Amino acid sequence: MAVDRDAPRRSMAGRALALLGVFDAEHPRLRLTELARRADLPLPTVHRLVRELVSWGALQRDADGSYGIGLRLWEAATLAPVAGRLREVALPFMQDLYEATRENIHLAVHDGFDALYVEKLAGHRSVPIVSRTGARLPLHATGVGKALLARADPAFVRAYLERPLLRCTRYTITERARLARELRATAARGFALTSEEMTLGSCSVAVAIPADGQEPPGALGIVVRSVRTDLHRLVPDLRAAAEAIGRRLDDLAHRAVRST
Amino acid sequence: MAVDRDAPRRSMAGRALALLGVFDAEHPRLRLTELARRADLPLPTVHRLVRELVSWGALQRDADGSYGIGLRLWEAATLAPVAGRLREVALPFMQDLYEATRENIHLAVHDGFDALYVEKLAGHRSVPIVSRTGARLPLHATGVGKALLARADPAFVRAYLERPLLRCTRYTITERARLARELRATAARGFALTSEEMTLGSCSVAVAIPADGQEPPGALGIVVRSVRTDLHRLVPDLRAAAEAIGRRLDDLAHRAVRST
Repeated sequence: MAVDRDAPRRSMAGRALALLGVFDAEHPRLRLTELARRADLPLPTVHRLVRELVSWGALQRDADGSYGIGLRLWEAATLAPVAGRLREVALPFMQDLYEATRENIHLAVHDGFDALYVEKLAGHRSVPIVSRTGARLPLHATGVGKALLARADPAFVRAYLERPLLRCTRYTITERARLARELRATAARGFALTSEEMTLGSCSVAVAIPADGQEPPGALGIVVRSVRTDLHRLVPDLRAAAEAIGRRLDDLAHRAVRST
Repeated sequence: MAVDRDAPRRSMAGRALALLGVFDAEHPRLRLTELARRADLPLPTVHRLVRELVSWGALQRDADGSYGIGLRLWEAATLAPVAGRLREVALPFMQDLYEATRENIHLAVHDGFDALYVEKLAGHRSVPIVSRTGARLPLHATGVGKALLARADPAFVRAYLERPLLRCTRYTITERARLARELRATAARGFALTSEEMTLGSCSVAVAIPADGQEPPGALGIVVRSVRTDLHRLVPDLRAAAEAIGRRLDDLAHRAVRST
């Protein structure tokens, strides 16, 4: 049985959160014993907490006895600013881009050192890629990530460049100096390009959503098959969409300030 | 100061969940005092729990000092079966329907006595309506809701009909006998219709997603301006999409069983 080494430090609320944190894309459903092992908590504690989490709707029990994230937690999460404000504002513009291209359309924010995918639109004809809503991918290997990095605070970029740069494919930029040059070029031209840097066979173009003198609230990207070489053709529509989203977010922010 | 009347009954984990549960679409951001009042918890308890929730990422503090749902909770919630399996499978088919109509495309499940909206696709030309991803609306007043009710367990339908039926517009069906007749007609023809029953100026058509001899895992609907009278024209595409989603979900379920 696992010993709760953090027992004196972790409160019950902290342990309940720890249980929610052990689910990931590869493990969206877990059995009680797996929950206990992954959260490093004793089984009786997990048993009691899981009962509480299920009764509230933060977890749900499947027919096979495993547990997954519950409907009520999902419902509460739709109120997060990224899901509510940012996604709701961006979605109609993303639909326009999807209609024009029928390719993967991404909306991502940066969280820590990752690009966190807030929305992904894709159809049957879009190139299959690894992203999904809720996925985290390295900033330096993705179009949306490079667009965000190119507009990020210089201190953050320095910290990013000091860490080892994960190689996702043989085309991922993993040399610091080259990535720094790439980010300067991205900032100068106003859009990011990737070519098989995250997934072989796909390339992408992305722009940061502008915000009045602040860090961009997110980035918008299009991922296409790499045999298509006309990525530049997509830039005007992509930039127009990002600017429209930025203006709308600014309007909402000003309205919120006025109403308080 | 609020007195925690449930103190002996509510654990710390339960109180942390209670804090997450007080956010809603009208209150996506709350101050500490509002959190305490809405959760009926003493301010010092709220203060301590909020600190823990923020440190994990279940809540986030805005620049103005109010709190909203945090990025990490949103990320965990993307792993819920409705968001992962159901939404991921349905999305490309929903995109096809959106492209063909440019109207609001809904995916909903039933949870308790509500239709819970799992996904909504809409563009700039779609009729503005009240639904949003994460919204709950009455089953009897919505297309997706009536499609689900028409295929629900008879005991559930009886329980539903015994409750007062909320009037959303003057066209909402609020008489039990009439709703029961409407649900029989819906089941017989295989699709649901609404005409200004949820929102004046809009009407809808919806079908349940079929599942091998079980309750439907969700329903798919299209909402258009009510001046359009050709809802029936949309039925073949809508039904084909629902059937394809149902088949894909069955495939995934069988594959999951085989792999365990």
